[in-house]
Amino acid sequence: MTMRAARWHGKKDIRIEEIDSPTAGPGQVLVDVAWCGICGTDLHEYLEGPIFIPPAGHPHPISGDAAPVTLGHEMSGTVAALGEGVTDLEVGQKVVVEPYIVREEDRDRPDYNLAPDMNFIGLGGDGGGLAEQIAVQRRWVHPVADSVPLDQAALIEPLSVAHHAWVRAGSPTSGVAVIGGAGPIGALTAAVLKGKGLTVYVSELSELRRQKVLEAGVVDEAFDPREVDVPAKIRELHDGQGADVGFECTSVDVVLDMLLDAVRPGGVIVNESIWGHEPAVALHKLVMKEIDLRGTIAYANDHADTIRMVEDGAVDLAPFITGKIGLDDLVDQGFETLIHHNETAVKILVSPTGQGL
Amino acid sequence: MTMRAARWHGKKDIRIEEIDSPTAGPGQVLVDVAWCGICGTDLHEYLEGPIFIPPAGHPHPISGDAAPVTLGHEMSGTVAALGEGVTDLEVGQKVVVEPYIVREEDRDRPDYNLAPDMNFIGLGGDGGGLAEQIAVQRRWVHPVADSVPLDQAALIEPLSVAHHAWVRAGSPTSGVAVIGGAGPIGALTAAVLKGKGLTVYVSELSELRRQKVLEAGVVDEAFDPREVDVPAKIRELHDGQGADVGFECTSVDVVLDMLLDAVRPGGVIVNESIWGHEPAVALHKLVMKEIDLRGTIAYANDHADTIRMVEDGAVDLAPFITGKIGLDDLVDQGFETLIHHNETAVKILVSPTGQGL
Repeated sequence: MTMRAARWHGKKDIRIEEIDSPTAGPGQVLVDVAWCGICGTDLHEYLEGPIFIPPAGHPHPISGDAAPVTLGHEMSGTVAALGEGVTDLEVGQKVVVEPYIVREEDRDRPDYNLAPDMNFIGLGGDGGGLAEQIAVQRRWVHPVADSVPLDQAALIEPLSVAHHAWVRAGSPTSGVAVIGGAGPIGALTAAVLKGKGLTVYVSELSELRRQKVLEAGVVDEAFDPREVDVPAKIRELHDGQGADVGFECTSVDVVLDMLLDAVRPGGVIVNESIWGHEPAVALHKLVMKEIDLRGTIAYANDHADTIRMVEDGAVDLAPFITGKIGLDDLVDQGFETLIHHNETAVKILVSPTGQGL
Repeated sequence: MTMRAARWHGKKDIRIEEIDSPTAGPGQVLVDVAWCGICGTDLHEYLEGPIFIPPAGHPHPISGDAAPVTLGHEMSGTVAALGEGVTDLEVGQKVVVEPYIVREEDRDRPDYNLAPDMNFIGLGGDGGGLAEQIAVQRRWVHPVADSVPLDQAALIEPLSVAHHAWVRAGSPTSGVAVIGGAGPIGALTAAVLKGKGLTVYVSELSELRRQKVLEAGVVDEAFDPREVDVPAKIRELHDGQGADVGFECTSVDVVLDMLLDAVRPGGVIVNESIWGHEPAVALHKLVMKEIDLRGTIAYANDHADTIRMVEDGAVDLAPFITGKIGLDDLVDQGFETLIHHNETAVKILVSPTGQGL
């Protein structure tokens, strides 16, 4: 049996190919992929890779795979078959994949996201979601309720990134949050924070992005930092107090600096963005206000609560789906739209089989 | 009654003057100052001030004082008199002063070090330790056991700074710490960490400073970063693992970068240094290792445990006293020694009365 898959051969060289279909080995689950989101990381691999992808001739030490590899790590689907020893799932059940590549001995440590040689399914090998099927260890397969539409379920992976940032902020369930940037991760961070009960402000240059998060109901106010002094405005709205938590989602120096001004003494800033340069940071503010600046990467034990938030309706993912395409349109309508229309595109979903389009 | 005091009139203009002696008002304690240490902050006020000092004509909103102000905030002494309502201390008892200026309503919040308009006695007004006597609210007077020599007691204030940095690191009582810099605050941080049971490494360019902390027994090893790859060396010594906690005590960009490499994934870096510039920070390392970078300023509810460590012998402060002078020699032998011989001078103590010299 063969299937179609989007495979990364090199920078700007992604090919839709016919490859062998996977089978469910012992302890594995075979998933029929329904939808797979395109991530900023995929875009970087397309434009500048290989970054996470193991280059040809240099197989990843855990997966054993090297380019060409199948792309896609934000996937939802249904169980197609169960491998030997997997008895707690049913064929046809809706699932999402937590796309980790880590060694077996690291799978149960609480911070498996920081394990040595950690990589992601769909980047570091072990198949990917931009294919009709994928076989995954049971450990990384999470059931979702039938009530959750499969297109929305494909956003549970990036929502888990936002959830983990919330955990890194100390899992607050009240208080005031300020987010720098309303791109896909900033918007999903707002969704988690709003769902957890916080007052949420965002600072964003793009009017279209501000409109999006306001319409989605995930922020209380969206400020244009060219028109509003965001730290002063937050203090004005909250009896002179700053925000309790800040989230950096832009990798822009002045945004981080704004957050250092906007959070209160003793506050926390979580850095969700990936920095391609070393920003100048006003550490004097961090010192005098005893701010905690915390890194966050991916997720670890976040999927269960994230899925619960979606099942319970605490987060509505529908507003963030801005496009649906087939596998053949991945580059032309997927990557190129995200590059050239990044103010309106939040999440573009791909249907590897074409079903649902 | 009058007394002698060192008063800051302007940059490079510190005068030893005869001023009115204070008296113990209601709720206050009058202290005969035995010793007062010279702090790096005093040095900055001397060279570049006013920084914390309220300029003439601009009285501090809490103390009501403005330049000229009496200097000195690292003081030990004995109780000279008790104001109305103070019944839990005795005349003659050894004490140290926690030199805070904060509003009455902020004194009992857990983070009174971050209270609005916070300043320090000996900088922002309310007298200072570089005088024969000082009157202080009972709240800020801490008894010390008779067994603690008064010269060592004068170092309890900077030791509390180091103690607070340890608290900000999560109050670890085991594990591996790496300190960037073995100046006065780096050395006292090493003393607290060693007293708390950690393995302590320091990275320091100066051979004399490395010798000092090694002789004082507060570090396990002192590395010259020109000769040793400190992060690699720590991993080599600890089964490939990085340090659990790092302490930045230099305000030098490459030292912070070294700490980002030296701590393990999930580790903590506490920034104790005061930055006069905005360093370039490799936030990508902070993200990928989920490091917490935490600011720390002064102390809050640290004196009790800090004093206990000194009383119990967990910290021996004697090695860090490198000079004793009288008030008249404050500038010539105090500040100028710290400026021109800062590799050998750790803490210079001043006896305002000349007793003990």
